[in-house]
Amino acid sequence: MTHNGDIPSRPSRRGFLAGAAGGLAAAGAGFAAGAATPTPPADLPTAPADTEPFWGPHQGGILTAPQSHSYFAAFDLHAKKREDVTDLLRRWTAAAARLANGLTAAALELDPTAPEKDSGEALGLKPARLTVTFGFGPGLFEKDGKDRYGLAARRPAALAELPRFNGDQLQPDRSGGDLSVQACADDPQVAFHAVRQLARLAYGVADIRWAQTGFSADLGAKQTPRNLMGFKDGTGNPDINDAKAVNRLIWVGDEGPDWMRGGSYLVTRRIRIALEHWDRMKLGFQEQTIGRHKYSGAPIGLKDEYATLPLDATDKDGNPVIAENAHVRLAAAASNDGAQVLRRGYSYNDGVNFTAERRPPWRQGMAYDAGLFFICYQRDPRTGFVKIFERMAKFDMLNQFVTHTGTGLFACPAGAADGAFIGHRLFESV
Amino acid sequence: MTHNGDIPSRPSRRGFLAGAAGGLAAAGAGFAAGAATPTPPADLPTAPADTEPFWGPHQGGILTAPQSHSYFAAFDLHAKKREDVTDLLRRWTAAAARLANGLTAAALELDPTAPEKDSGEALGLKPARLTVTFGFGPGLFEKDGKDRYGLAARRPAALAELPRFNGDQLQPDRSGGDLSVQACADDPQVAFHAVRQLARLAYGVADIRWAQTGFSADLGAKQTPRNLMGFKDGTGNPDINDAKAVNRLIWVGDEGPDWMRGGSYLVTRRIRIALEHWDRMKLGFQEQTIGRHKYSGAPIGLKDEYATLPLDATDKDGNPVIAENAHVRLAAAASNDGAQVLRRGYSYNDGVNFTAERRPPWRQGMAYDAGLFFICYQRDPRTGFVKIFERMAKFDMLNQFVTHTGTGLFACPAGAADGAFIGHRLFESV
Repeated sequence: MTHNGDIPSRPSRRGFLAGAAGGLAAAGAGFAAGAATPTPPADLPTAPADTEPFWGPHQGGILTAPQSHSYFAAFDLHAKKREDVTDLLRRWTAAAARLANGLTAAALELDPTAPEKDSGEALGLKPARLTVTFGFGPGLFEKDGKDRYGLAARRPAALAELPRFNGDQLQPDRSGGDLSVQACADDPQVAFHAVRQLARLAYGVADIRWAQTGFSADLGAKQTPRNLMGFKDGTGNPDINDAKAVNRLIWVGDEGPDWMRGGSYLVTRRIRIALEHWDRMKLGFQEQTIGRHKYSGAPIGLKDEYATLPLDATDKDGNPVIAENAHVRLAAAASNDGAQVLRRGYSYNDGVNFTAERRPPWRQGMAYDAGLFFICYQRDPRTGFVKIFERMAKFDMLNQFVTHTGTGLFACPAGAADGAFIGHRLFESV
Repeated sequence: MTHNGDIPSRPSRRGFLAGAAGGLAAAGAGFAAGAATPTPPADLPTAPADTEPFWGPHQGGILTAPQSHSYFAAFDLHAKKREDVTDLLRRWTAAAARLANGLTAAALELDPTAPEKDSGEALGLKPARLTVTFGFGPGLFEKDGKDRYGLAARRPAALAELPRFNGDQLQPDRSGGDLSVQACADDPQVAFHAVRQLARLAYGVADIRWAQTGFSADLGAKQTPRNLMGFKDGTGNPDINDAKAVNRLIWVGDEGPDWMRGGSYLVTRRIRIALEHWDRMKLGFQEQTIGRHKYSGAPIGLKDEYATLPLDATDKDGNPVIAENAHVRLAAAASNDGAQVLRRGYSYNDGVNFTAERRPPWRQGMAYDAGLFFICYQRDPRTGFVKIFERMAKFDMLNQFVTHTGTGLFACPAGAADGAFIGHRLFESV
């Protein structure tokens, strides 16, 4: 009654169900309690639509045009030996490549006497431009002073623990992790499905430590999406079509260990925003705080969203047009010796909980646990996020509305060629 | 420097930004720190795409073809007098009608010296088929033994507190509420934005008590979406195109109070699913538990998803093909004297937390806080959800994988004609 595992070896999520009706008829399953309905494979589309490439010199999900949904999971490693870690990375890579291609994590076996290797909730859904991006946290190299996998000597200097920043209210259960997996897709169910299959492949070796959903307003590629503060967010990002800028700011080069060349460092910050407080602020104050006009996204006093920030401009009284502690001034490359990161964050919305505001009017009550799941990529966090954020954490006017409740730091290795596994050069060169 | 409130009185979310560039040029804002950039209104599209009607005999979001995202919020009322409640409902109705039409909650005033009345994060987004559905919880009629708004005598008998069900693990901060607002849209930012504007209109009168996000796999109207268990969910729903069935099962008729005629009762259940446990089950066992085949969605032993459940069929040994405690058998109208509800639930994914399973293998560790935000509509909960679920809560094989952690019960009144407010007949007839 069941097909061999190799027959439906490459059903597409889209094609799978399309072939189901005919297959059932052919199988002619009668009233046989306990038998699973077999379903034959559909023909594999040779060039599935809505797919992002998985194999290549760089991992997907970094320069990829942002998808509308994200599911991020950080894992604690429990593996006793290095081979368990490399086996996991092999399984993860193979499964992620299938998933990105719109397939199930493994071929369905249709055997009623065994658990299926894919949980099935993405059957019939489009590939939805799924990308899966893997990262290595400090704990892969050393944890609690132990060199668990013989990798401590290979920890890149750039993977240095982030300092404590002014105002941090970090929660351990939203921070850290030895491994990271981020699934981005234009369908939240596709993103969740991907992380779920990978987490299952990690049973006994690694457990999810924390996870975070995210979404982005879908305005098409030509408009900058607005964050939950109502402002356009991402205008000042490096141009990902400028290969020179990308190589200078995002990809690790010759300065890095071999396995990180073509990779990038990922910093995550879960930033809760006091939206109720923000909503009570005058429009002019909001704009002064950000340093941009709300509706156009242009720097204060200007008309074009993409105009150069007039950091030296003053008004008739000699005061700076963009305040000294405006968010965009402190974040700008020009204020940070040229330092820039690639922001690729998502808004998050985790309901409400009881909260006491840290600042006047010290409102207490139910408040949104919503804001920004900030994600950035850079060639070196020490000259990227850390350099930029140290001053922002102290002076940014925006700080009265935001609280950093989670943090993460991961080395995302280069991409893999078909047949290799993500990060293999770290392990094979030991 | 600012427009009057009446000029941009009906900017569309879509059209608003389209007109921004030209408007900035015309306004000619110089370097004037503190002044907000004015933005002129765009022409209002006469028939905006992607909109669902707001005004009408029934509220939207009940029979509406399910959107891909949902944001549900339950509110505690703090209003001292009835007029504060009716004023809130007036404000909510007016804002919801604008939002459903792709507009800001109120006309933007573009006054830098005042807070804007809309938080702005939906500017430029499509209407996304937004619906806003309002409900009245038992606490509107009576709370802690107090008849706060002189409505106790008008509480419908059908709005009777749900009984305690077998296995309930209800959390107060995910349950109850005096008012409910559900925003459904094909864009999560549009749904969040809608609830946020309404919550803001309730400051001082009502606070969000709990909130829940949800998403649904988007398969197009012709396929039944799969839930996180990987099974098609919704096959057995009443046909919403069958006016007779809809009137019999969903809309309150002559038996109800005047203000509920054309309305419906809403039951919410936040159902956490032990997905890790479920994923370890054999395919055949999963199918026996549900009573349907996983891939086709057909009843066990059959080929067509929409085939009548063969509740009387037996196998060659005389055992029922669909197990006595299979989910579909216990849920079926045929097993419940014809009782049926309209399910309109969404999957939810709230990350992970530490969990001890209630059943073998008593696994402890980080587990998904994910599952189903079950939502159903019915003419009378006593003969709908309560009747069906009482037996399911005791016998359903699925119970070993699911835990109800939240509950809600709301009377969703009839829709309103343009100019009236939702629920007005409840208050005006007192």
